[in-house]
Amino acid sequence: MDMMEILFAMAVILALARLGSIIFAKLGLPGLIGEILVGVLIANIAGGAFMTDILNIDVAAPNDNYEVLHVLAELGVMFLLFSVGLETKVKDLLGSGKSAFLCALLGVILPFLAGFALIVALGDYGTNAAMFMGAAMVATSVGITARIIKDMKLMDAKESRIIIAAAVIDDVLGMVVLAIVQGLATSEGDLNIMDLAIIIIKAVAFVLVAIGIAKWIVPRIHDFFDERNRKIVASGKVPYSINKLVLAIIVCLFMSYLAEYMGLAAIIGAFLAGMMFANYAWEWELEHKIEAITSFLISFFFVNVGLQVDLSTMTEMSVLLLAGIVIVLALLTKYIGCGIGARIGDKTVDKSSMNIIGVGMMPRGEVGIIIAAIGLASGVMSSDLYGVVVLMSVATTIIAPPILSSLFKKKYKEEYTIVPEDNL
Amino acid sequence: MDMMEILFAMAVILALARLGSIIFAKLGLPGLIGEILVGVLIANIAGGAFMTDILNIDVAAPNDNYEVLHVLAELGVMFLLFSVGLETKVKDLLGSGKSAFLCALLGVILPFLAGFALIVALGDYGTNAAMFMGAAMVATSVGITARIIKDMKLMDAKESRIIIAAAVIDDVLGMVVLAIVQGLATSEGDLNIMDLAIIIIKAVAFVLVAIGIAKWIVPRIHDFFDERNRKIVASGKVPYSINKLVLAIIVCLFMSYLAEYMGLAAIIGAFLAGMMFANYAWEWELEHKIEAITSFLISFFFVNVGLQVDLSTMTEMSVLLLAGIVIVLALLTKYIGCGIGARIGDKTVDKSSMNIIGVGMMPRGEVGIIIAAIGLASGVMSSDLYGVVVLMSVATTIIAPPILSSLFKKKYKEEYTIVPEDNL
Repeated sequence: MDMMEILFAMAVILALARLGSIIFAKLGLPGLIGEILVGVLIANIAGGAFMTDILNIDVAAPNDNYEVLHVLAELGVMFLLFSVGLETKVKDLLGSGKSAFLCALLGVILPFLAGFALIVALGDYGTNAAMFMGAAMVATSVGITARIIKDMKLMDAKESRIIIAAAVIDDVLGMVVLAIVQGLATSEGDLNIMDLAIIIIKAVAFVLVAIGIAKWIVPRIHDFFDERNRKIVASGKVPYSINKLVLAIIVCLFMSYLAEYMGLAAIIGAFLAGMMFANYAWEWELEHKIEAITSFLISFFFVNVGLQVDLSTMTEMSVLLLAGIVIVLALLTKYIGCGIGARIGDKTVDKSSMNIIGVGMMPRGEVGIIIAAIGLASGVMSSDLYGVVVLMSVATTIIAPPILSSLFKKKYKEEYTIVPEDNL
Repeated sequence: MDMMEILFAMAVILALARLGSIIFAKLGLPGLIGEILVGVLIANIAGGAFMTDILNIDVAAPNDNYEVLHVLAELGVMFLLFSVGLETKVKDLLGSGKSAFLCALLGVILPFLAGFALIVALGDYGTNAAMFMGAAMVATSVGITARIIKDMKLMDAKESRIIIAAAVIDDVLGMVVLAIVQGLATSEGDLNIMDLAIIIIKAVAFVLVAIGIAKWIVPRIHDFFDERNRKIVASGKVPYSINKLVLAIIVCLFMSYLAEYMGLAAIIGAFLAGMMFANYAWEWELEHKIEAITSFLISFFFVNVGLQVDLSTMTEMSVLLLAGIVIVLALLTKYIGCGIGARIGDKTVDKSSMNIIGVGMMPRGEVGIIIAAIGLASGVMSSDLYGVVVLMSVATTIIAPPILSSLFKKKYKEEYTIVPEDNL
């Protein structure tokens, strides 16, 4: 292994990813799309010569340099999901309203069924790939939705509260769906009802046990040490403080390992680990610190997403057509499912609110891509389907924000400016 | 490559390293020594079975898992040196007194000559290994010295100011020495005066150019963008802000690559990159952010230092005897060189101050080990010499702090408490 080569590839990739992010942010689009595009360009320009000859990265037959890049990318996405978990408090999750819950639930069921049915109907890809497509369509990117609301200073609007709560529930449901889908896809041979039941129980149990630990056990451990430190201080001694950041990282790594060990995705463990620390994220300054680590590593993930897009498969008419259909389905199913769900749960949600909620839940952002990447890595999704999901994630992420802004503006007629930010 | 295995190994190593750090901190010793010891235990317990069978790490014939660990370790030490650089302002460096400069200079020359002469005199290891031994003895660990002074609230004492300034100059001189030594060691065949001159010029030029960039070019770039943003704000628009952390990391990676490209060590580039950002580290909150990344990665470096210590070579009487001699030389040469240097530069430095300064400059900490690790990796240092340097670094780091505390206490007769901290 040649450290010099790796440092060079890392520096170039990080610099280009930043450039892509800056350009897209200037255009008022999410920076991560620019980073993915940089990956696509690196992999496809001059038939990939820049990637293989200058960066010495081989994606098809992974060489040392690519293996390192890949581990950094995996760690990056784990830390990203860990920080999403840090923002997901169990109390808020269990206490969010009926409206948000039904909004999330219908916004999970409809897109999953649509994605699954479409791929099954096509007949070319198999049920496992269809399940992954369904799972990828389920995801909602909390980050992108929340950013617009925050930029417009509408955190207190009724629609905003429903969207944010629903997006959080959607995250948890999405993890359950991913866990089940991956469990099914990676189990060998034909499935009978018994196997299906075991996988569902395993996935749901993993999530529920983690939620239980976050709700009942973590606070007790925290309070125990808090009390102990108070006593030590009272006795005039200096209490011993451990490094909370590293503790959190150890739990994150261990939960990610455990998830993989159970046949689930590492990010599920990372997300649940984050949830365990959510109540102390602020007190321990975990969010800022994890954000620093994430912003170092996450570009490798987004660029790697792009590296795996083979443009030559994407020029086929049938693939582009499929992508078009998937995008329309992705937009419509969230729009209808979330809007109607919110209305059923709360009769005061009128038509304009349904519109806002439906559009606000549309962007798939990184989460859809993450799920597709897992499908690709485990050999369940073909590279053209993977490309379709990347396109779908990018399209929903670009299309929704301007519509959401204008709907909010129409309803609240308030002045607002969107500050372009070169961050996630 | 198996992500599950890597996550498991990472979680276990990080958890054990923390445990080692906590235990050593409780004993009032630097935590990093505990982390190194954890590495030694992992590699040597049950003949290494824990390492090879449970963690699936092979240090001797590096497998994928070890390669990943190794890259994380390298990145960790780069970020560590980057953050040392962040604390090294060129202005302070050039403006520090004659006393600090001579203290650093003699504290570099004496240990280098002693280490070099000793290994040459033994005749078994060759001049290249002797040069690395000299370079490893040069290093002063700013962190450990500064922590004691800070813990005792003696930042304003004359001795403290000389020690801190000298430690910073020592860092830069140490990097120059390392650059020269590595350039010489990795150049092929016999050296003539011409080659030697080229290597010295190259190494010194790299450091001087970086200092020049930090002093004259970086402030101009900073001011240009500052002025531009001011104008944008004045015109009522929102200025575009780039992610400073990622910018700094890109420069760090690029400078590290450049250093390797020139035949120098990556950490030299990382250190110099840090120096370029030193004036803005506080304004951009770089220190905290880089610290978060470092505290995630650095344990892999310290554990890896331990993993490479083969206890079976260390039980030979001759090696232990050599280690004893090296430790005594390391303590004496810093004590004499730094004390006398400080005195020559400032006649008001009395005997008690000379004692404090001499002892304060003793701990080699991580820096000595880093240099030995480079020597081992480039095949110049044998594994027993490497073990000797690790022992020397550990011993000087353990021995100096209590003596320094008691000397300070004697001179200043102030109350102080050392707060055990589970950090670097």
